[in-house]
Amino acid sequence: MTAMRNIRLTLEYDGTAYAGWQVQDNAPTVQEKVEEALGRLLKEPRRVVASGRTDAGVHALGQVANFHTPARVPLKGFVHGLNSLLPRDVTVRAAAEVSSEFNSRRSAVDKTYRYYIYRSPTPSAFGRRTSWQLARPLDLAAMRDGARHLVGVHDFSAFRSAGCDAPHAVREIHELTLVERGDYLEVVVRGNAFLRNMVRIIVGTLVEVGEGRRSPDSVAELLAQGDRTRAGVTAPPQGLFLAEVCYDETVLEAYP
Amino acid sequence: MTAMRNIRLTLEYDGTAYAGWQVQDNAPTVQEKVEEALGRLLKEPRRVVASGRTDAGVHALGQVANFHTPARVPLKGFVHGLNSLLPRDVTVRAAAEVSSEFNSRRSAVDKTYRYYIYRSPTPSAFGRRTSWQLARPLDLAAMRDGARHLVGVHDFSAFRSAGCDAPHAVREIHELTLVERGDYLEVVVRGNAFLRNMVRIIVGTLVEVGEGRRSPDSVAELLAQGDRTRAGVTAPPQGLFLAEVCYDETVLEAYP
Repeated sequence: MTAMRNIRLTLEYDGTAYAGWQVQDNAPTVQEKVEEALGRLLKEPRRVVASGRTDAGVHALGQVANFHTPARVPLKGFVHGLNSLLPRDVTVRAAAEVSSEFNSRRSAVDKTYRYYIYRSPTPSAFGRRTSWQLARPLDLAAMRDGARHLVGVHDFSAFRSAGCDAPHAVREIHELTLVERGDYLEVVVRGNAFLRNMVRIIVGTLVEVGEGRRSPDSVAELLAQGDRTRAGVTAPPQGLFLAEVCYDETVLEAYP
Repeated sequence: MTAMRNIRLTLEYDGTAYAGWQVQDNAPTVQEKVEEALGRLLKEPRRVVASGRTDAGVHALGQVANFHTPARVPLKGFVHGLNSLLPRDVTVRAAAEVSSEFNSRRSAVDKTYRYYIYRSPTPSAFGRRTSWQLARPLDLAAMRDGARHLVGVHDFSAFRSAGCDAPHAVREIHELTLVERGDYLEVVVRGNAFLRNMVRIIVGTLVEVGEGRRSPDSVAELLAQGDRTRAGVTAPPQGLFLAEVCYDETVLEAYP
């Protein structure tokens, strides 16, 4: 019997043209493109398991997906072979062989999202696909005051979309920082797991704080009340990047 | 008689979808989009004069174009009005009213181009529209040695494309620097004027130096020989940005 290998891919994608990660009928998705390329490379259909879904229009710098295969293709062959078969807005940045128990979704211990806001009275021709462009000035001190209420273990019921089907809303945010990068404001959110639209509702709420339309302390009240209808708007998808997924897993071999 | 105003626009564009700046038959160009938007705003056809052409697929962060009009539209109205009428990959970043003699092309005293090279064994899903992606390592010290030969006043005959119709090839490069920005290498070229494809041929030649395929001193020989067929490849258009055009002109009023 041929030993099965468990291959973990690190994927980068520009989500502009896709209806999100997960395969759907009648809409192009990133998972479908990866599985098509893998099927052509291995000459057999192959499903992949990702760390989680990303929504339509959301990007990834470090989405992780794994699959089991008996194929003896070297890791370098998976990386360059898949990149030659994938559309150019989906790329494999790295491949690793991991232990058989590894599962991209269940083994994840930590995820980092980055959300980009472009602050300028006039729009950028380049930022339009990868940021939320806001013309009004933002009070960063107030946004940081609001953000600190969200760090730690909380019930994030006020920060989940109506379509979220998670059994409970308790999550832990390890880090929530606002970093100025020229005209861009980068919101970094690291946590153990996330509810549907949670990062985008957090960003939308903090922007309302930054515009003076709600107080920093109202963020604490939102957590206490758990009412989605009182939180801010859902920030648009194009500013959001799944940046990194962390695992404890032992890597047997990696490329590059 | 109504006094004519001379309006100068600073334009940013993602050149991916365009056959360059200059109006042509049967291909979309940036100039055409700007003139269409201006015609709709002013309700009369209006030609604009730019600092120079950019080629198909080349981007701009600070292209400058001007036009004369008797319209009393405030500068803010030109910026926001045009942005509401332009496609989202072409934006007006600023507008100014300048003296009647100002001409975007003839008045330019200095231009800065930036060329982005993305250096990684695996391609980026994001850099593909805005950089030249190279998997091979580059020897930056050798590239800088080669680059210093090009600074100053030289006959750049070896660094012009066959289609270049400039009467002579003497130009002055004020600055040619290579800046590392993470995985990106930024090549900054500032000069008084440029020949057709000059920046892209310079970058293509310096990349050959960086890959060890030609010596740094061969760049000096290219200048002396003036033979285009001995210079490097023309670097692809998507890495090139017209970053800034400088003028001595007095600005009467500016927005923002």
